Amino acid sequence: MNTPGRTDGTWLQGAAAAMMLSFDVDAESCVLAEGAHFSNHPGVMSHQAYGPQVGVPRILDMLKDLDVRATFFVPGRTAEQWPQVVESLLAHGHEVGHHSYAHRRLVEMSPEEEREDFERGLHALKQVGASPVGHRSPLSSPSIHTADILAANGFSYDSTLMDDDRPYLLTTPHGTLVELPLHWTLDDFPQYAYLPDPPIGNAIESPRKALEVWSLELQAMRRYGGLFVLCCHPFLSGRPSRVEALRELIVGAQETGDVAILTGAELAARVKVDSSVPVRPDFLSAPLNHNHKSKVGPHA
Amino acid sequence: MNTPGRTDGTWLQGAAAAMMLSFDVDAESCVLAEGAHFSNHPGVMSHQAYGPQVGVPRILDMLKDLDVRATFFVPGRTAEQWPQVVESLLAHGHEVGHHSYAHRRLVEMSPEEEREDFERGLHALKQVGASPVGHRSPLSSPSIHTADILAANGFSYDSTLMDDDRPYLLTTPHGTLVELPLHWTLDDFPQYAYLPDPPIGNAIESPRKALEVWSLELQAMRRYGGLFVLCCHPFLSGRPSRVEALRELIVGAQETGDVAILTGAELAARVKVDSSVPVRPDFLSAPLNHNHKSKVGPHA
Amino acid sequence: MNTPGRTDGTWLQGAAAAMMLSFDVDAESCVLAEGAHFSNHPGVMSHQAYGPQVGVPRILDMLKDLDVRATFFVPGRTAEQWPQVVESLLAHGHEVGHHSYAHRRLVEMSPEEEREDFERGLHALKQVGASPVGHRSPLSSPSIHTADILAANGFSYDSTLMDDDRPYLLTTPHGTLVELPLHWTLDDFPQYAYLPDPPIGNAIESPRKALEVWSLELQAMRRYGGLFVLCCHPFLSGRPSRVEALRELIVGAQETGDVAILTGAELAARVKVDSSVPVRPDFLSAPLNHNHKSKVGPHA
Amino acid sequence: MNTPGRTDGTWLQGAAAAMMLSFDVDAESCVLAEGAHFSNHPGVMSHQAYGPQVGVPRILDMLKDLDVRATFFVPGRTAEQWPQVVESLLAHGHEVGHHSYAHRRLVEMSPEEEREDFERGLHALKQVGASPVGHRSPLSSPSIHTADILAANGFSYDSTLMDDDRPYLLTTPHGTLVELPLHWTLDDFPQYAYLPDPPIGNAIESPRKALEVWSLELQAMRRYGGLFVLCCHPFLSGRPSRVEALRELIVGAQETGDVAILTGAELAARVKVDSSVPVRPDFLSAPLNHNHKSKVGPHA
Repeated sequence: MNTPGRTDGTWLQGAAAAMMLSFDVDAESCVLAEGAHFSNHPGVMSHQAYGPQVGVPRILDMLKDLDVRATFFVPGRTAEQWPQVVESLLAHGHEVGHHSYAHRRLVEMSPEEEREDFERGLHALKQVGASPVGHRSPLSSPSIHTADILAANGFSYDSTLMDDDRPYLLTTPHGTLVELPLHWTLDDFPQYAYLPDPPIGNAIESPRKALEVWSLELQAMRRYGGLFVLCCHPFLSGRPSRVEALRELIVGAQETGDVAILTGAELAARVKVDSSVPVRPDFLSAPLNHNHKSKVGPHA
Repeated sequence: MNTPGRTDGTWLQGAAAAMMLSFDVDAESCVLAEGAHFSNHPGVMSHQAYGPQVGVPRILDMLKDLDVRATFFVPGRTAEQWPQVVESLLAHGHEVGHHSYAHRRLVEMSPEEEREDFERGLHALKQVGASPVGHRSPLSSPSIHTADILAANGFSYDSTLMDDDRPYLLTTPHGTLVELPLHWTLDDFPQYAYLPDPPIGNAIESPRKALEVWSLELQAMRRYGGLFVLCCHPFLSGRPSRVEALRELIVGAQETGDVAILTGAELAARVKVDSSVPVRPDFLSAPLNHNHKSKVGPHA
Repeated sequence: MNTPGRTDGTWLQGAAAAMMLSFDVDAESCVLAEGAHFSNHPGVMSHQAYGPQVGVPRILDMLKDLDVRATFFVPGRTAEQWPQVVESLLAHGHEVGHHSYAHRRLVEMSPEEEREDFERGLHALKQVGASPVGHRSPLSSPSIHTADILAANGFSYDSTLMDDDRPYLLTTPHGTLVELPLHWTLDDFPQYAYLPDPPIGNAIESPRKALEVWSLELQAMRRYGGLFVLCCHPFLSGRPSRVEALRELIVGAQETGDVAILTGAELAARVKVDSSVPVRPDFLSAPLNHNHKSKVGPHA
Repeated sequence: MNTPGRTDGTWLQGAAAAMMLSFDVDAESCVLAEGAHFSNHPGVMSHQAYGPQVGVPRILDMLKDLDVRATFFVPGRTAEQWPQVVESLLAHGHEVGHHSYAHRRLVEMSPEEEREDFERGLHALKQVGASPVGHRSPLSSPSIHTADILAANGFSYDSTLMDDDRPYLLTTPHGTLVELPLHWTLDDFPQYAYLPDPPIGNAIESPRKALEVWSLELQAMRRYGGLFVLCCHPFLSGRPSRVEALRELIVGAQETGDVAILTGAELAARVKVDSSVPVRPDFLSAPLNHNHKSKVGPHA
């Protein structure tokens, strides 16, 4: 077992930890996936529309103030409905990633359905000028085929799995993919999601508490050489006091002087050429035994 | 995209942010809508009766102490059962708004049922001397017809939707309505609602935590020129320590010197003549594409 | 509307507020009421047995240290299974109240079943030497008959309803009862109950947070002349750090110098002769309109 | 009733309280027990694999830094899938305990199924070099046979029940067992478990809050002579900021100078020869009346 820390991987290039700011621009897609009838629920629709309409521009202003770039995962359906939002993301120099077409659980689709949904999502993003190289599965629910589909389509990375807090390589029948793992700890859903129907969550925590959870994790990751993947949703984190909490988090990271803030694509490019990161088979190649050939302990 | 801030709209008249103090006086209505049998549950009935019986007078005293006026949304059924409560609200100079008759989800009614419920609610309020110009749909569940019904009945504003944190205009087949949007962040349900049956919530947070959530949002809204719509329920927020938290919140707003505390009707009057606020079609005119013609970004 | 405060009722006898420390000794009864099969679940049974076995003696020691007396509501079934616990409560000079026989929801029983359960519970308490004059319905679920049954049996008070935070008189067909109302705010269930099956709760809050919620309420009640009815469960609040939080709460009350700590029976005796408290019909006499003849506002 | 405190039992050997650090290494087992189909859910599988893959080595490093030994309860299924993890635990000098084979609720098995599951779990642990003398039932759900099976198999202790916070002896038809009771208060599930499907929890609390809950309990247990059984899960508590919170908790215990940190086996050895601890019949011998012959009050 190796000593965790700054020497863990060349991908860190001397930084103590890396931070990837990611936003899932679900908008209406994530509730319409729960039931098409919600399109006739103005209360629910307006709750979701806040994201692209108010949250995204406010987050863009904040990121611009701090001069950092982020990665926005956008469902194809949202790109179709809010094309100007995707255009605005690209105009600000941010990365746009693939987030399926309809924000349904990929694990519940047949392989054919999943491929179709993947292509439809890709097409919708390309229509508005995006060229995604990274993907995140909706609802943390990739299928055993997802990584393979990504590799087959020339994608560079996935950011969905939760079995590490540092990047690794995922081998699939169609080639190798970088995995940028994340976790609920750094997601805004457990802190802010509240909606009775569909029941997506029932807590409204203080932005100060969310900031504490995230700051403590960043601080500890600097000890362990980790990858901090923040996963926020503009319809949640675009609210005024929550944007201010994000601002404080990012300023805090900048002030450490040893946290590298990078997009998913930038991270993937670094990891791909780093021979020190673990290589693991995907679930299609080794279901259940996904990791059985890994050495125990942090990255080799 | 414009710069957010005090120049956002003439409706702010130079204030950094506006605060609308609103109270939904649901009393027994909101649990009877979940099941008529609860009328035989003294535990549940007494839990709800606390609102009109103890909460409202205590909140009225506090508002009087601080010399501010608020907006109380009252279901018709509650007005029938607690007429002296509505009379007391009016006697104290507060605004009384329409909150349906039976506190049922409007989205689950046929258009005919909804119109009937609307008129019955209006009639009940008029019987006790109120002349509502504003409406809030129960349970954040307006139908696609609600805005149109309001406009057709000469209402001035709605305060139900969640797709912005500044007022805007909503065009309906029967004319234009002011929308004063709100959000769960500024609602007391996620902080205080606890009742096992019917299961309306399961958390008892500290009033200090609720105050933190609300104060942080107010503080941030002063940066963004926002409309702070507090939505409290006397059966929850009328408890002693919670009234004191509200007192502290309002005193804090007063002490900033730049937050305008206004009723819904006062806000609507300001917004109606403000050509800088966005104009959006209602859901009846443009279901899913409610906002598709809006420019991206905060108010134009 | 009168001015709230110390002059509210002679029952306060000059105190700013009154505190009733009550403990519901549910032990196994409250889970067996959810399903008889739990008697074969050693995990669940042991979770509940902690109350009488460890929690009660520890709470008794703490109360003795602080020289205060409390009221313990005990289901008949628990008295039968843990007779030595009830004997111990009496030996320490505390009040023992009636809490039904089987800790089932009274609202789901027929009037005959409820009377039978009431008498069985009373008999079980008498068998171990208790002579209860007060009652609390399990699960905040009295029926419309409960108050009448209590009056018919010569009980002095009930402590179940939630429509006030000061005592009042409840008139029933069989006479008048004192009501000592309580609320979830001052209950330990929302703070500490956690059990997956049966699912009685899912939060483990810090005793410091519970203490904050309760202390803020006590502090505010001193402003409003309220009755602070703490409702704790030995299987929850008997844990070491929680007993220490209770100790701190009570010491805090004692140090104010203006909070009267009284048992339910003592409070009822005071209230019965206080002509300033409101008189309200019970739910049997006036369902839904329980309070319709009350004046609006705090106690007359 | 005796005075609680340091004189409670010779098992404390002069310490004010004892601390047992235990980790349930559930990995995939606990979700596969909810449904075999989860083996095809890479999101869920990766969420669980974090435990053995990253959490365990990180926790081992921390324990080594602080020079303390812990007890790891491992399901047989996990030992089969992650043999190198168990070997690593043993190599570091920690205790490995029995945690069933498949992490199913024992209470839902027939006696035959339970015996089979027990033996299969034991065999799997022995295959990788462990010789368990202690057991913890999955999901706090032992059956009425569990204690007897343990005694019949020569086990020294169980650590599953919740009816005390100090060790005691459990008599079974096949002999006497030491019980090292625990409680949800000292478990990381209520603080950190969040997974929508299967729904194992829905809160992400701050490690600072978890640390407060645990520290307050430890502090109070030093007053009462208690046994502090921490129960953490590497897939939850192995995250960076949570490991740091554990580090702080243990350093805090070490700094008191009067808390003995011991493994389950060490505690059991002490308790077995301590004639001052209570002796109680197991649930097979005395269902429902499990404790009816105990004296009321803390340990005799």
